[in-house]
Amino acid sequence: MAESVVFIGNKPIMNYVLATLTMLNEGSAEVAIKARGKAISRAVDVAEIVRNRFMPNLKVKNIKIDTEELESSDGKRLNVSTIEITLAK
Amino acid sequence: MAESVVFIGNKPIMNYVLATLTMLNEGSAEVAIKARGKAISRAVDVAEIVRNRFMPNLKVKNIKIDTEELESSDGKRLNVSTIEITLAK
Repeated sequence: MAESVVFIGNKPIMNYVLATLTMLNEGSAEVAIKARGKAISRAVDVAEIVRNRFMPNLKVKNIKIDTEELESSDGKRLNVSTIEITLAK
Repeated sequence: MAESVVFIGNKPIMNYVLATLTMLNEGSAEVAIKARGKAISRAVDVAEIVRNRFMPNLKVKNIKIDTEELESSDGKRLNVSTIEITLAK
């Protein structure tokens, strides 16, 4: 089974909450919420809102942090932190 | 032994990196990096910089996310996400 992933961007936070709930209600046993840089704090918000307001039985199965190296348009290397929060039924 | 804690605020990120390194070099076996709200992404940055640039043998022992309820000055309740990243030798 393909992994269900929600990638956190700049849309309103409830968009990502709904995307996560939809995947879980349509049969995904777990969903990975992924974010980079400043969006990391929003990824935690999404996970917490899903659990506290909508699916209290959901577990935080795993949280992984890492660093990705990006290349900017002028060729400079830039390190950016990442997070992956796996919620599971 | 008291737990060693670095609480992430609005100072330059290297202040928190240095605080973490100091605790580890002065005998703490582990350090908890804690943050709330928008500072959460900076907490991940601190943990990643400490590990990648300074102490590559350090392990991410645990990552915990949670929600705290704050009361604003006008008495309104406000939920804020939190993170606690425990780095261990």
